[in-house]
Amino acid sequence: MKRATLISMGFMAALSSAAIAATPVQNNNITESEVEAAQKAWGAALIQISKDYAANGHESASALANQVLDQAYGYSHGPVLFKPTLASGEKTFRVTQEGALSYFVGGNDYYGDGGFALKPWETYDFENAAVYINGDLALTMGHVILTDSAGDTTTVDKTWAFKKDEQGTLRIVLHHSSLPYSE
Amino acid sequence: MKRATLISMGFMAALSSAAIAATPVQNNNITESEVEAAQKAWGAALIQISKDYAANGHESASALANQVLDQAYGYSHGPVLFKPTLASGEKTFRVTQEGALSYFVGGNDYYGDGGFALKPWETYDFENAAVYINGDLALTMGHVILTDSAGDTTTVDKTWAFKKDEQGTLRIVLHHSSLPYSE
Amino acid sequence: MKRATLISMGFMAALSSAAIAATPVQNNNITESEVEAAQKAWGAALIQISKDYAANGHESASALANQVLDQAYGYSHGPVLFKPTLASGEKTFRVTQEGALSYFVGGNDYYGDGGFALKPWETYDFENAAVYINGDLALTMGHVILTDSAGDTTTVDKTWAFKKDEQGTLRIVLHHSSLPYSE
Amino acid sequence: MKRATLISMGFMAALSSAAIAATPVQNNNITESEVEAAQKAWGAALIQISKDYAANGHESASALANQVLDQAYGYSHGPVLFKPTLASGEKTFRVTQEGALSYFVGGNDYYGDGGFALKPWETYDFENAAVYINGDLALTMGHVILTDSAGDTTTVDKTWAFKKDEQGTLRIVLHHSSLPYSE
Repeated sequence: MKRATLISMGFMAALSSAAIAATPVQNNNITESEVEAAQKAWGAALIQISKDYAANGHESASALANQVLDQAYGYSHGPVLFKPTLASGEKTFRVTQEGALSYFVGGNDYYGDGGFALKPWETYDFENAAVYINGDLALTMGHVILTDSAGDTTTVDKTWAFKKDEQGTLRIVLHHSSLPYSE
Repeated sequence: MKRATLISMGFMAALSSAAIAATPVQNNNITESEVEAAQKAWGAALIQISKDYAANGHESASALANQVLDQAYGYSHGPVLFKPTLASGEKTFRVTQEGALSYFVGGNDYYGDGGFALKPWETYDFENAAVYINGDLALTMGHVILTDSAGDTTTVDKTWAFKKDEQGTLRIVLHHSSLPYSE
Repeated sequence: MKRATLISMGFMAALSSAAIAATPVQNNNITESEVEAAQKAWGAALIQISKDYAANGHESASALANQVLDQAYGYSHGPVLFKPTLASGEKTFRVTQEGALSYFVGGNDYYGDGGFALKPWETYDFENAAVYINGDLALTMGHVILTDSAGDTTTVDKTWAFKKDEQGTLRIVLHHSSLPYSE
Repeated sequence: MKRATLISMGFMAALSSAAIAATPVQNNNITESEVEAAQKAWGAALIQISKDYAANGHESASALANQVLDQAYGYSHGPVLFKPTLASGEKTFRVTQEGALSYFVGGNDYYGDGGFALKPWETYDFENAAVYINGDLALTMGHVILTDSAGDTTTVDKTWAFKKDEQGTLRIVLHHSSLPYSE
């Protein structure tokens, strides 16, 4: 193994200077703080659509909602497993962006939604019951609490799956929302 | 590069015989058929617990339910994100096995559940709206349809996340079940 | 639970027709056959660069090599862990595309490579010793056998890691190649 | 949506107290610091085997090496993609634990290895050229520098893939080691 032992001082010096420079690290995983940020962003976007509707009308709010879906959901990558709170029957699941857009801002004859994001939402909060992180995918489950302009509070049971894409953006690939069970 | 070019015929022969033997492949991923099998197994287990309760009483059914939770859920690995259909209030989320067991067979003073698996379930079916597979984790969303001994049908909106463990067993790490929305 | 049991026949019919349409499935995992195809493509690209050099000269071969690196390696996503067969000293690791390009076609004063892909390669084969698949990442290890126009054979010990990107393309994110050990 | 808005103050209080307790988080991902610790542990184990051999003989060192393989490699989970530094020909790849054990401590007629870990190793260091983290799998590439009791230094080009198992232990599932190329 003579070759290997004949390492010149120059080579060792090169190693040392290389050690000073930071080692490049590519990490594709989701972190807890990224999950929390994405959860906060979801609520902020909902309220923003609501306020945009009040200020600028349906067309503006609808364009904004579509932009939010483009950026925060995974529809451009494939189907999204989305069960909105108030959807039912054969329109329960919104695996396409068209179905999701209808749920948030209505205006779609087939789905017949009223537009959940058009309600006068004021504040948003969430309480995670548990979080599960597996590579570039994170699962959350907990309560989401929305308050409207009249001070009425709506709490829903909410499950999300976030996928971190190649640009580092977390995208919702699963969203199951339901009203609390009452006997 | 003389070393490399001096490959003896014996070595090439060894390569050829190695090629005849199958290359060892370790594949940690979930397949669609594994997901379907796990979904079928969930319903079969529910009905088995129900029938065991009718035939052998609560103690037997409770032991069976605990065994099902041991084998089909991920509680031994960490928290499970479980929102059962009929759970609500501060008892909505059952991140521990104790909470899940109570939901299925009752008998727990704190949770006060009636025992969902003790109802006289006869048949089970599911309809996936979409499936999302990411490594050793698979997400499903769709309807689950249960029929009881009186012929009454219960349909729920159901989301599952299955994690394939090191033994190749799919374990439920997320389970969100809710009644269909009705105005 | 009266709501849930009052499912109209129309709804069940909708479920049935939905079942006829294929369930959308998003599967981000790598398959064995995708790995084999990527391994074959690597060799085909190497030979193509070699033949392009012979036919059209260095500029053409260099452009082609750059295109291959763009498409088959992960440099556009981050650092690639690349240890080429004949690289050594402080130039052993080529974590940037510039370093990789130099290795394949030379023409870079800093690296001083002769250009591995410019040799007159004729045929390519590989023998996997084992394959390891973990989500969207696959690892392979085995022999790669190259034959040149003089009929001389070069065998190297080769390790690859392939990452499946969002477009479904397998990209090399790790490549360790070494000459067989000889005493 | 009257149900949802009729949330009692008691329920909100329950949410608040739940928020005080830490949310359970299951995170299956590898961290950079875990990777570094595993890389350090590999060298420490090599030196420990070497010193055990000097102090207690071959049987003791062999038992220790087997224990290290049990704990730090993934052989109990499936094949390991292992190309040791000094292995060649049809014995290049050691996908079974038997082949790996032979490489480190010899004593195996088929493989005929001298026993790499039996050399009088004194110190160990590593320099990562780059690290790639993807879920529960991490890839490293760089130099490993070993010094023996005579002060001679051996540098090798080293690639590892570590898989985090269900107990949180990082296991080597790929290990490609080669002597630096010299013309």
